[in-house]
Amino acid sequence: MSKDDRIEKIKEKIGAYPDFPKPGIFFRDIFPVLLDPTTFRLLNAVLVEHIKTKCPGVQLIIGLESRGFLFGPNLAQELNIGFVPIRKKGKLPGEVFGVEYKLEYGLDRFEIQKNSVKPGQKVVIVDDLLATGGTMKAACELMTMVKAEILECLVVIELDFLKGRDKLTKPIHSLIHYD
Amino acid sequence: MSKDDRIEKIKEKIGAYPDFPKPGIFFRDIFPVLLDPTTFRLLNAVLVEHIKTKCPGVQLIIGLESRGFLFGPNLAQELNIGFVPIRKKGKLPGEVFGVEYKLEYGLDRFEIQKNSVKPGQKVVIVDDLLATGGTMKAACELMTMVKAEILECLVVIELDFLKGRDKLTKPIHSLIHYD
Repeated sequence: MSKDDRIEKIKEKIGAYPDFPKPGIFFRDIFPVLLDPTTFRLLNAVLVEHIKTKCPGVQLIIGLESRGFLFGPNLAQELNIGFVPIRKKGKLPGEVFGVEYKLEYGLDRFEIQKNSVKPGQKVVIVDDLLATGGTMKAACELMTMVKAEILECLVVIELDFLKGRDKLTKPIHSLIHYD
Repeated sequence: MSKDDRIEKIKEKIGAYPDFPKPGIFFRDIFPVLLDPTTFRLLNAVLVEHIKTKCPGVQLIIGLESRGFLFGPNLAQELNIGFVPIRKKGKLPGEVFGVEYKLEYGLDRFEIQKNSVKPGQKVVIVDDLLATGGTMKAACELMTMVKAEILECLVVIELDFLKGRDKLTKPIHSLIHYD
């Protein structure tokens, strides 16, 4: 099956909910992909192939809490490299770096353990969705703090109309786009 | 390598932080396991073997947000079955069932999509850690609401002194125990 055909199969499974979590938002639901093992296998294979081809020498997969946790550990295993989490504030023990990012109302904070990434390590940051780009931008800032080299920010779905990628200075790749 | 040897290798990687997140709590950190691909592979293999042996006929893996997301999807893939999330309130679109559970201060709420599990399906619920058992009990209640048959609640780490398993009426299995 061609890459385009596989992505089309994955796209067919993505759920769509108008007006969630509030009026005017059209929510894309990735979980039906995970409910179907054949489609989830296609998705994992496409992601692994992409990283092997486009991000040679990657040494760590960085996953954003919480939906980046669904994909990151499996990708790291397939590539035989480590997985490191970025978590919401107060959840990681030991010394951490933190970055605040804007939510619709107020601020939230992402953290990473200082000793989890070595300076110069080549990383790919993984999440399910790129929307406004605020959380991915915060993740990139954390990577700068630990002196990692970001090869790519990789997401399954990008909501193009929110122009999240305009916030990012690092390469971003998305499998599926919605206008 | 015997199962006991493999579990010992996994245990060696689990981090320990006194007085986190507050004085008197001895925090167990599972993320160093995921940072080391060889150890993470051992962990996944032990979990898959356990489910194949002890939970024949399992049809779905249920993962609790957010650290159950680290293990559940990969287990579901290895078993060629679907993965279904239980998430914090307000994060899942469509019709959901919800159950409140106690935190130290106040209440939180777990939800599951009503159409994600079919009545009678055999499930294994996965999380990283069993502490007081409040979240696992809530997950079991959600499984009753969707009329699933719980074969087992499966966690990597159990903090025995918190007696979380006393709250549960379903079979619970833990790889690693701390007194």
